[in-house]
Amino acid sequence: MTIPTLKNDTLIRALLKQTVEYTPVWLMRQAGRYLAEYNATRARAGDFLALCKNPAFATEVTLQPLARFPLDAAILFSDILTIPDAMGLGLYFAQGEGPMFERPLRNEKEIHALAVPDPATELRYVIDAVSEIRNALDNRVPLIGFSGSPFTLACYMVEGRGGTEFREIKTMLYQRPELLHHILDINAQAVTAYLNAQIESGAQAVMIFDTWGGTLSHAAYREFSLHYMQQIISGLIREYNDTVIPSIVFTKGGGLWLEAIASIGCNAVGLDWTIDIGEARRRVGSKVALQGNLDPSVLFASPEVITAEVKKILASYGNGSGHVFNLGHGISQFTPPDNAAALVEAVHTLSREFHINSV
Amino acid sequence: MTIPTLKNDTLIRALLKQTVEYTPVWLMRQAGRYLAEYNATRARAGDFLALCKNPAFATEVTLQPLARFPLDAAILFSDILTIPDAMGLGLYFAQGEGPMFERPLRNEKEIHALAVPDPATELRYVIDAVSEIRNALDNRVPLIGFSGSPFTLACYMVEGRGGTEFREIKTMLYQRPELLHHILDINAQAVTAYLNAQIESGAQAVMIFDTWGGTLSHAAYREFSLHYMQQIISGLIREYNDTVIPSIVFTKGGGLWLEAIASIGCNAVGLDWTIDIGEARRRVGSKVALQGNLDPSVLFASPEVITAEVKKILASYGNGSGHVFNLGHGISQFTPPDNAAALVEAVHTLSREFHINSV
Repeated sequence: MTIPTLKNDTLIRALLKQTVEYTPVWLMRQAGRYLAEYNATRARAGDFLALCKNPAFATEVTLQPLARFPLDAAILFSDILTIPDAMGLGLYFAQGEGPMFERPLRNEKEIHALAVPDPATELRYVIDAVSEIRNALDNRVPLIGFSGSPFTLACYMVEGRGGTEFREIKTMLYQRPELLHHILDINAQAVTAYLNAQIESGAQAVMIFDTWGGTLSHAAYREFSLHYMQQIISGLIREYNDTVIPSIVFTKGGGLWLEAIASIGCNAVGLDWTIDIGEARRRVGSKVALQGNLDPSVLFASPEVITAEVKKILASYGNGSGHVFNLGHGISQFTPPDNAAALVEAVHTLSREFHINSV
Repeated sequence: MTIPTLKNDTLIRALLKQTVEYTPVWLMRQAGRYLAEYNATRARAGDFLALCKNPAFATEVTLQPLARFPLDAAILFSDILTIPDAMGLGLYFAQGEGPMFERPLRNEKEIHALAVPDPATELRYVIDAVSEIRNALDNRVPLIGFSGSPFTLACYMVEGRGGTEFREIKTMLYQRPELLHHILDINAQAVTAYLNAQIESGAQAVMIFDTWGGTLSHAAYREFSLHYMQQIISGLIREYNDTVIPSIVFTKGGGLWLEAIASIGCNAVGLDWTIDIGEARRRVGSKVALQGNLDPSVLFASPEVITAEVKKILASYGNGSGHVFNLGHGISQFTPPDNAAALVEAVHTLSREFHINSV
């Protein structure tokens, strides 16, 4: 399987566990508030949602971190809640709050009225952004598409906002599981169509962000989050234009369930920083590649500390391919950009020795 | 080893893995806002801190849940931040916010000025509450004493409040680890003295709540949280008045590190709901008892659902002693008290079959 058009295909090769010369690196939320140029574009756009919904602005901010750092991937700039917004729930951002919905799901009638949005029309702005970013990237590095997981989307759809203690959705989960399953099934269909539309318009890898699955019990996680991510993975386009499209699944706080996550058919599993990546590698064996897993707080320390912490993760993963370096969560808005540069530099420099015998 | 004076010593026996007739149960935060009588006492006291600092009120609310439910333990009603308050940081509760400190640690001078409070004087109100509660309990069930973990206390002491993204303390952890170690060493000495004073005034078991250790990386957890809990456990009074005083360590989100936690010398390890308790039992072997691990959200569902979920946990733990039933986190203020009653009833009734051959 070759990826002929990419000038730097290190990310794709690592996700497929093919040999690489160094460990590729990108940063979750790499286009974001820690960059002055991002804040400037956002100010021009008006607000965060306007930024997401305008393909030209989305392209501009997606490429900003690549202009600063030699990252091995771009990731579509978008919001994780585009799907429920397209379902008509009315996404908005109140000052100083996270995302909120004007019309959260409040009764059975609303739940049964949910329909799978057509990405080609109702999420056109995302699909257009993907094409435009691909053009702008000119095959320098691969573009990662993404979506929130069905359960994570459902949390916002039922609670109406983030940052809650999940009382509404967990009450539904335990008392009316069939209602939650209905929402999750619609969400899984919607995410599948959405990611496939991203692939067809140019995404070269896709990632599912399961931000809130880690708040579930071990049994509820499998039934209400992992099951639906498996359904999505089964429905994804695996090859497009003769190239494999790798998939990454990331459940924050999912370290205890690693074997289960690694068995749903995805190519790679994202790790937060609570697990030793060497231990994770032993647990998943050759099934999947691993992505992670530096605590984003390390980027508040000096370049020397960052380099030392990068080294520990590279050494723990050990020799050979199958590792994509990343943070264990999105980069903080308080990160000095020079420290992100130090991280990328450390990964690129220090990882070469772990790939000498593999190339 | 016998506990001669207690009318119901099931909790102590389970913590020591001695035979019991049924699985004992208590609920984290069992004296709390979900009980109307608690809210009434709190209103009489004026506010939460006044309630904590008055031994008569603390005794009253500690006993309230026992009057409603046949719980197998009482737990001292207090706040986890009494120690830093006694260190002079000025604990207060702003309206609608969690706990805050007037004088969080802001520089090296303040950190080096920290001193271990003398529980007999500076935390007298807690020690007096323990004695008064023991008297009021009249040996019906054991009284559990508790403290926050050194790392959890340090989070509040450095951040000045809860609910942050831990930027201050993690920057210190990575950039100035020796400063954080100094705080943690003082905290560990303070917690040891505090728990021993609780034991000497009547606590019959003690628990360390490590609420925030789970936010650390696997390596940082061992160095900055677990190490100091081990230091405390090593310094605890193990027998008092010829009875063993069992210790429980609970790190929320610590399921990945279970073997390490089980090896620090404590008698029991608390579990949140992300781990299957049967798997946890296999992982820790005969080293420790386990406490947990129902998702508190189950208590928003019907008694039938509660009973079914209780049964799953009991069956997963399986036959024999060494299990103390509890929630995986504090009971929510939105819990209907009748549902807490259903939980206790289900544990007591359904657990007997798992102890038949052991008695």
